[in-house]
Amino acid sequence: MADRAADEAALIAAHRRFYDAVERGDLDAMTELWKPGEDTVCVHPGFGQLRGTATILRSFALLMAQASYVQYVLTDEVVDLHGDTAVLGCTENIMVAGHDEPAQGFDSARAVATSVFVRVQGGWRIIVHHASVLGEEWRPWEEVPR
Amino acid sequence: MADRAADEAALIAAHRRFYDAVERGDLDAMTELWKPGEDTVCVHPGFGQLRGTATILRSFALLMAQASYVQYVLTDEVVDLHGDTAVLGCTENIMVAGHDEPAQGFDSARAVATSVFVRVQGGWRIIVHHASVLGEEWRPWEEVPR
Repeated sequence: MADRAADEAALIAAHRRFYDAVERGDLDAMTELWKPGEDTVCVHPGFGQLRGTATILRSFALLMAQASYVQYVLTDEVVDLHGDTAVLGCTENIMVAGHDEPAQGFDSARAVATSVFVRVQGGWRIIVHHASVLGEEWRPWEEVPR
Repeated sequence: MADRAADEAALIAAHRRFYDAVERGDLDAMTELWKPGEDTVCVHPGFGQLRGTATILRSFALLMAQASYVQYVLTDEVVDLHGDTAVLGCTENIMVAGHDEPAQGFDSARAVATSVFVRVQGGWRIIVHHASVLGEEWRPWEEVPR
């Protein structure tokens, strides 16, 4: 269980580094987080699947260039370990300001994100990041017909 | 490579069974596809994360009860194998009709989905399904500032 606790701590730290990298616009830090190769997937809110780490990193470069300020507060952050694979889920509470319209102040948004990490020598790397706009709460366990 | 081809064929078949189960409203078939337990995640388009297979299956029961007709055409279906973990990505082209408003005919929608399977004795089981509304195409590789 000590190993499991160490894995979970390392994964939470890597998950935070992911959001820190977007906040700071640090593409090098983002690059270190992803598994290199063509077998990675990223879905940004509202968009289709991007495949391959080079393409995904270019998309983050564009996102970083478009926002002058972005801040994430994560809630509902959960780690699920499945051997050498881990799933990190969270709700992203986002504040963002663009370059073009500073007078309009900040936009806020909420998204839900699922990230999948695989164990590699020296740590964990991301193979999947899927984020989507969070519309409303849904509690199907209260509504299911019996 | 024969094993890899067999794995990919089994995963594509399981992925199709997932959508067939929703189309047919077959909760037993859906139940067989998921890994039992609390460490599973599902995000339906526009909603937050649901955790645990029992909760997730109740959400599918509700979805199935709400639609009188649903049909999926999958495009961009891709399998990525990472040892005993596999990522299935696709675009869902959906036609759906509700029970309440048959006169209004069908709605169509597009979503992008990422499903993660883990290898278990006897096959592959789903641990993650994240689907989100597809707004527009995005080609960041054409737009990134240099």
